This record gives sequence, C-alpha cells and structure tokens, in this order.
Amino acid sequence: MPSPSRHNGPVHRSNDHSIDRSRTAGADFLQLDPGQAPAGGLADWLARRLREAIGDGRLPVGSRLPATRVLAADLRVSRGVVTDAYRRLGEEGRIAGLGRGGTVVVDQFAPGTVPPSPSLSPPPSAAAQPPPARSTAAHPGGTRPGPAHPRPARGTTPAPASPFDGAPATTVFDSLRTAPARIDLTPGVPDLAAFPRAAWLRAERAVLRDLAAPDFGYGDPRGTPALRRAVADWLARNRGIRADPEEVLVVAGAAQALALVGEVLRADGLDVVAVEDPGSLGTRQHLGHRITATPPVPVDAEGIRVDSLRAVGARAVLLTPAHQFPTGVVLGGARRRELLQWAAEGGLVIEDDYDAEHRYDRPPVPALRGVLPEQVLYLGSVSKLLAPALRTGWVLAPTRYRDALVDAKRLSDLGNAALPQLVLAHLMESGALERHLRLQRTRHRRRRDATTAAVAAHLPGASVHGAAAGLHLMLTFPDGLPCTDTELAAAALAHGVKVHPLSWHARLPHPPGLVLGYAAGTPGEIEEGIAVLGRLLQEAGPPLPG
Amino acid sequence: MPSPSRHNGPVHRSNDHSIDRSRTAGADFLQLDPGQAPAGGLADWLARRLREAIGDGRLPVGSRLPATRVLAADLRVSRGVVTDAYRRLGEEGRIAGLGRGGTVVVDQFAPGTVPPSPSLSPPPSAAAQPPPARSTAAHPGGTRPGPAHPRPARGTTPAPASPFDGAPATTVFDSLRTAPARIDLTPGVPDLAAFPRAAWLRAERAVLRDLAAPDFGYGDPRGTPALRRAVADWLARNRGIRADPEEVLVVAGAAQALALVGEVLRADGLDVVAVEDPGSLGTRQHLGHRITATPPVPVDAEGIRVDSLRAVGARAVLLTPAHQFPTGVVLGGARRRELLQWAAEGGLVIEDDYDAEHRYDRPPVPALRGVLPEQVLYLGSVSKLLAPALRTGWVLAPTRYRDALVDAKRLSDLGNAALPQLVLAHLMESGALERHLRLQRTRHRRRRDATTAAVAAHLPGASVHGAAAGLHLMLTFPDGLPCTDTELAAAALAHGVKVHPLSWHARLPHPPGLVLGYAAGTPGEIEEGIAVLGRLLQEAGPPLPG
Repeated sequence: MPSPSRHNGPVHRSNDHSIDRSRTAGADFLQLDPGQAPAGGLADWLARRLREAIGDGRLPVGSRLPATRVLAADLRVSRGVVTDAYRRLGEEGRIAGLGRGGTVVVDQFAPGTVPPSPSLSPPPSAAAQPPPARSTAAHPGGTRPGPAHPRPARGTTPAPASPFDGAPATTVFDSLRTAPARIDLTPGVPDLAAFPRAAWLRAERAVLRDLAAPDFGYGDPRGTPALRRAVADWLARNRGIRADPEEVLVVAGAAQALALVGEVLRADGLDVVAVEDPGSLGTRQHLGHRITATPPVPVDAEGIRVDSLRAVGARAVLLTPAHQFPTGVVLGGARRRELLQWAAEGGLVIEDDYDAEHRYDRPPVPALRGVLPEQVLYLGSVSKLLAPALRTGWVLAPTRYRDALVDAKRLSDLGNAALPQLVLAHLMESGALERHLRLQRTRHRRRRDATTAAVAAHLPGASVHGAAAGLHLMLTFPDGLPCTDTELAAAALAHGVKVHPLSWHARLPHPPGLVLGYAAGTPGEIEEGIAVLGRLLQEAGPPLPG
Repeated sequence: MPSPSRHNGPVHRSNDHSIDRSRTAGADFLQLDPGQAPAGGLADWLARRLREAIGDGRLPVGSRLPATRVLAADLRVSRGVVTDAYRRLGEEGRIAGLGRGGTVVVDQFAPGTVPPSPSLSPPPSAAAQPPPARSTAAHPGGTRPGPAHPRPARGTTPAPASPFDGAPATTVFDSLRTAPARIDLTPGVPDLAAFPRAAWLRAERAVLRDLAAPDFGYGDPRGTPALRRAVADWLARNRGIRADPEEVLVVAGAAQALALVGEVLRADGLDVVAVEDPGSLGTRQHLGHRITATPPVPVDAEGIRVDSLRAVGARAVLLTPAHQFPTGVVLGGARRRELLQWAAEGGLVIEDDYDAEHRYDRPPVPALRGVLPEQVLYLGSVSKLLAPALRTGWVLAPTRYRDALVDAKRLSDLGNAALPQLVLAHLMESGALERHLRLQRTRHRRRRDATTAAVAAHLPGASVHGAAAGLHLMLTFPDGLPCTDTELAAAALAHGVKVHPLSWHARLPHPPGLVLGYAAGTPGEIEEGIAVLGRLLQEAGPPLPG
C-alpha cells in the first residue's frame, strides 16, 4: 500500500522541494531509457513509466511534467509518442494541462487501480438537490481569453466525473494536503505564527513545578482530571454546554475522536453515518475508515436538508452546525428544530464543533449538545483554537456510549500524554486561552477582509460563501471554470499556492469551487495567492460549456 | 459496558480513597435495606446487592467488606444470612477472605456474566510444560501457622481456575492496575520522582524558541523528522540496530504500537499471534483487541520454547527477548538461533524491547531486529526510560508492513503531538537522556538489591527470578501459598501495597507468584511493602495442599 507520507517534507523547506521539482525536466528525467521499450510500443512504455513514477511518488501531485517537445528531444523519440502518453494519463485523470501552467500531476492513484472507498448512492432527493447557493458576496461572471490545452474531457461539475471518485480519496487528499507550498491557503489551520509560545512555556514551568511523581505514570485513559474540568468550564463559558468533568473524554484531536466513535458505533450495530455534502473529506475519511458507509446529505443555504436525511434512513449523522464545512452556512433556526426533532425520535447527531469559537459578524451559535445531551455526541478540539500539532480534543458522548468510548480510547493508546494536557488546562483556567482567542479574532477578521477584497479584485467570477465566522471561506464559480476545480488547485500548487478544490469535499453535483483558509497567511500572502489564482484562470481561457 | 476508569482517582490522593474504603463498614453500608428483600430470600437479596455494588464499582477491587458479625448486627439479620451471601460471592470468585486481612473484593466481574476473551487452547506440548524455573536466588520453603478462612475452593495453581479466566481480563486488570496504593510495587513503571523536570523544561524552551510556525500545523503522521532521527541514533548507540530515520514510526507508546500492529496484521490475514506464557497481560490485551487469538507459548529458563511455538502453528509471535516479562529470563543463545531460524522460514517476530536499556549485572543483549530486520517488527518506548505519561514509543517494521502502519497511525490520530516529540528528540540528541539513564541505573540497582534483601528476610518461601536487568522481578512460591496469588495481591492492596499476581500474566499452569516493580519506590518503601506481604502470609497459615 503506497504511503502518502513520503511527500511529507517539512513545510518550511518548501523552496527545496520547488527546486527539486523544476529539475524534473531534462535529460535525466526519471532515468527513462527508450531502449527498454518493446518494438512499436514506445507510447505505451512511456505512459507506463510515468504512471509508475506518479504512483510511487517520484512525481508527486502538483509536480510539472516536461513539455512534450522537450521530453521528446531528450528521449530521441517523436513528439507524437510523448503527446500520446500524456493524453492517456490525462484521460486516466492522473495529469492535466492548464495553459502556460504546463502539464501537472493531479492524482497519484487512478480510478480502478485501487478499490473505491465505500459509499452509498445519493438518495433520489439528494441527486435532484440544487448546489449550495448562499452567496454572501455576488460578483458578475467573467470570461477569460487565451487557450487551455491539453485538457481532459470532463464537464464543469466535476463531482461525478472527478478522477478522485474511484480512488481512495484518503491518499490523494493527504498527498496534496501535506505537500509544501509557498503560500498555504489550506482551510482548517489557525494562525500558527501566533501560537502563544511564552504563555505555553510559563504554564509548562508551573505544571512541572507542581506535578506529583505519580502523575508521570499511567494515568486515567479519559484524560487528566485537570483538563477534563477545564474543558467542562470552557464549554460552559463559550459553547452553552453544561457538562460534568466526568463526562469529558480527552482524545488526540477530532481525528481520533472520529476513529473511536466509528469503532464504538459499529460495535453497537450502527455502521452507517450520514454526512453533510459538501462536507469535510478528512472527517469523512476518518469516520469512514471504521464504519461501512457515509451517505451524503445535501446542504443548502439553511444547512443540512433534514428531509434528505430522513430519506437516507441513517440512524446517525455527522454535522458542523455552527459553521458548516466547507460552505460556512449556519444551521438555520427552523432547520435546527427539524434536526432536533429527528434526534428526539431516536437519531444520533455527531456534532463536530470544529471552529465555533471563531466568529466575526454574528453572535455565537449555541451547540446542539446543550439542548439534547443524550442524542448529541459532541466533538471539539484545540486544532483551530491553538494548533493542530497539539493533537488534543474532547468528546462528550450520550451516557450509553460513554464507557465503550473510554474502553476504545484505552485500548487505542491508554490515554493522551499528561504534560500537554496539564499545560493546556492551565492556559484554559488562567484565561490565557480566551485572551489569545480575542487577539486572534481581530487578526483573523482582518485576514478575512483581505481575502474577500482580493477575491473581488482578482476573481470577478467567484461567489464568496460563509465568511461570517470560522477560518475559511468557500468560493464557487457559478459560470463555470475552464477546467475542473481540482485541476485549478493542482495548477495553483505548481505555482506555490495551496487551496482545496471544492470537489474534494463534495460527492453530490455542485458548481466548481475552491475552499480557502485565510487564518495562517498574512494579508499580503493572501492577496498574492488569490492573484495567482486569478492569473491562472485568465491564462486558461473561457469556462467550459456547462 | 462498565468502565474501569471510575476507579482512576489520582494516585497521590490514595489516602482519601483509603478513608472512603474504611467507611464501608458501618450502619449505612451501601444503604442496604433488608425490608426490600422478598420473604425468605434475605441471603439471596444480600448477595445480589453486593454483586451489584462490586459490578458497578461502589465496592472496588481491593476494598474490604464488613465482618459478618458487624454487618449482621447493622442489618438486624442473622449472621448466617451474611455468611451465606459472602460464601456465594466467594464461590463466584468475587470476594475472598484472608485471615485477619478480612474479606476483600478480588474481582469486579464474575465468570460468565461477560463474554470470555478469545483465546486458543494451549497446545499439547504447552500444557505439559513445567513452570518457569530460573531461580536466581533460592530460599528454603517454609510453612506458616494460623487459619485461612473463608476461602474459595481453588487449587494452588490458579491459572486454569482463576476467577479472571472467564472474565474480560482487561477490566479486572485495569481496575486493580489503576487503583491507588500507599506503596506501589507495580511492575513496569520507572522511578517517576526522578523525571528530569529541569532538563525537560530547558529542552522545551529551546524547542519553542526554534520552531517554525508550520511545525504547529498538521505534521507527518510518522512523527517529526527530528525525533525519528533521534530514535534511529538512539537505537544504533544502545540497541545494536541500524535503522534509517525514514523507517521509524513514532507512536503513542507500546500500547498504540500493539493496536496498530494488530490492525495491520489482521488486515493482512494474520490474525493469530502467539505470546509468551507467562507474558504481559496488558500487552496481550492490547494486541488481542485487534486480532482473533493470542495462543500461549511456554517460557522456560532459556526463554520462549521455540518447539512449542512451532507446535502452536502461529505465523507471528510477540516476544520480550531482552528481559522476558514477567520472568526476567534473557533469551538464551541456542534458543535465539532457533527463533531466528523460525523467523527466517517466514515467521514474524514482534520484539517488544520494553526495558532493554535497564541492566545491572550483565552486558546488553542486542535486539533481534538488528539481525533480521525484514522478519522482526520492533517496538520501543520511553515509558521505562522516562515516564509512561509521555505516551511516546516507536515502531520499526519490516518493509512490507511499513506503509500500512503509517496509514493506520494516520487514520487513528494523524500522528503524535509535535512539541513533546521535539523536546524528547532534544533530550536524546543532547545526551541528557543517556545521562539520566546512567544515574537511574545506579539508583535502580540499589532498589533491586533492597528488594532481594527484603524478600530473603520476609518471604523465606519465595524464589526470585529475573533480577539481573529491568525494573521488576518475579517471585514464585514453589511450596505453594495459603491462597491464590490473586487473593494475596488483593489482600496486600487492602493493606496499601500494590503488586501483580503472577496469575494475571499466565494462562498455562504455573506456581503461585508475584511480580514486583522496584524502580518507583524508595528502599524503605520496598522493605515495608514486602514486610506487609510476609506478615499477610504468616497470618494466613500454611500453604494449601498442592
């Protein structure tokens, strides 16, 4: 099983990687030797060699292939051989051309070469569902001059035809997710430069001073009492949740929470969990690794369609009600009541409260957990509050799942490490974390504003969604794109700018779009990154016919 | 599913717990109201109430029941009613009497009330196997005066008849494992008071100063490059293993390593892994949670019986070759060659190198991994080097399992937290960890010597095993005990002293025994704890007939 992690060079070494990649063109490209090709099978041989290099990571997603003319000259073969090989890989969805952006690798794994990830067909009501459309900033559509060649024969709604559909999105997602970039506009990461290093060190000193020796031993798999109390207090102050510290299970981030929840639900016979669509690919993967199916339920301007949820027939659903990922929709009041009614009838809501503490232009939305504690399984983490690298989160489960979750956590790793838990508890109880959050809010709002301004200036065809809260926004292109959004994202990465294509996070039909995180970049970087996107689209030509 | 974790009060609050427990005797004991009993069913009612209180943790393992006379008076029932109820619970294996030690709870879950954990029957060759017998200090057997009553009808080799056999040992083990005690002689914990707090804080300061912002983001699921390099260097210096940092997978301790390995092996169709017997219960549980069966293979004075391993027919075996747990045996040269031959024929050795860095009277034993890297899956951790609370370990896998293990780790929690990894790497690369280890070795040797001296003084019937290395030793009682070793351990816990009964770690027939960790206690505490054991045995009377 090939690992995506071989691309995981440290992000701050991105320049080294760029240099490596620019060297892919040239006489020694992949040490190709046409003498090894069988007679008459040059294009076939070349396609196979390139396929291997993409598959084993020597040509990572986002890297550029040599121009056909250059490679043909290097290999001393006719240019038709190279064009033919590129065409095949393009048809397979492995590579794509984008005008002057060159030909780039867009998918490490082709459809069919690996088993597709399990998923149910969308329900009839879902298939007929219009795309999410809550535009908070409308722009006139625009066409762009210039040719776009070569490009795979695909439509403007890439979801059904995306090369990612048949592949295990896990690996594709992670190889691009972890690829380094000069300007990282990946959603879901807070302002990492603002990590409160001095406060953390002060808290750690206090913790190390006061710790009893047995606290260095094997602890409570649920987490240290201090952090469980701090989390309960935090949720009461910030999320409208009253919880006993005894209910809190400390976990290694939302990723582990989903793995444990999936394991426990499956053991309980509940192996289908509906998810929002569009909805986080990563979240779906982590849950989907443990259970049988994650059928998609459409999201509209009011949030998840509860009528579609009922049609799907799943007994559980994973939601991001406070700030839907990726659309940014807040679950509307009527929809919220509908959903709670569904839960009160026996449904289980898994509430992923991933960035609820970040809001700018609206009051906080209380967590569903506060209303129906025995029907809502709540997940939170510090990944967006402080840093993903802390790998710390929490679960509040309905009583009936609590002991099984503790068992699953214990059998998984015996509990989180003690020291970081205690330091975090110190920061939460001392008010340092709330101070940090307030400072961050101002800074994030400025970056959000820089993003919407840059989109207005450089991407006149884009609609902005979900910018009132959170750390990311979604762009859609109602008039279409000259390529799939995945190809646009891959081309941007080849130019040092990392964004997520909406297609990663959607399985139902949807317009092409991008998901941009704005918390981690400076306003200047954000502007520059969005300008790159605008330039790529300008060069690529008019949108494909719908 | 009841959780053992409700007993997990912080260990340094053990006095509070002791007080709570001493209050179990008295007028309000469990708020029992005989008026609720059906006519003529008083004993039945009382037994049921006690069974419930034991099952739900109100009467935790190790707690004492009121004397029959006292409880009868409190409840205004005849003493026969109480004696009868106690007798039933005794027969079920839930409680046990130990002379003046009173009647104590020894098992939260009775056989049959929960599904037994999966295991194969021991192979014929194993069943006939003599018990581990490598005594490094022989003592004359002794008999002790005094009565032992009441006691469950069980023999002197408790393994087959132990109350733990039918129960999910997980929960029993963990409820006792995590119970607080005044003197903790639990095996597997280093000297926690010696944790290098100042060095840790210095390293953390350096790490926080030098860290790039992206390092606070989502990292490589294999671990930070710095720690993987430091681990590779450490293994080269200390364990005779040459490994590329790219091969190192950082995990949340050996517990997670076993969970991931189990998951990956099962997915590969390898769902039976043989284990040593005696062998670590915790290790077996973590692995056994993911795979189908962990058949026992006997250990003798030379280590695991490779002929029995062949007879079992498993394609993989989990081993502790450097210092077998719990016997302390070092895998002998001939046996080592036999085992490597078995591996070279296609067997997979999972080498749990859990405390190999701790040795006193003999040279280090090189790891098997160094000899056959493609047939040995190596696990190490800092739980015995520094502290279990760090939840940090590593895996070196044969190439064929490497990518699948990285995937499993990623889907489990996206990788260990970054900061503690970097601090640990700093301590390893700066030499601070090796300095710590040298200091600890001197201190541990002193404690080891205090232990063997106290055993000679207070437990004249005990044989000491495996004291040349590691952080624990094993005692066996060749002439038998007046009770099962589990009952002895429970009685000791009721007197504030925590040790492991050998029965926990053995499924094949074996003499009664105890496993004592000596690293975490001062020589004075060790002496006192062993004196308590000696006193309990003296009071309990002569050994049961064999």
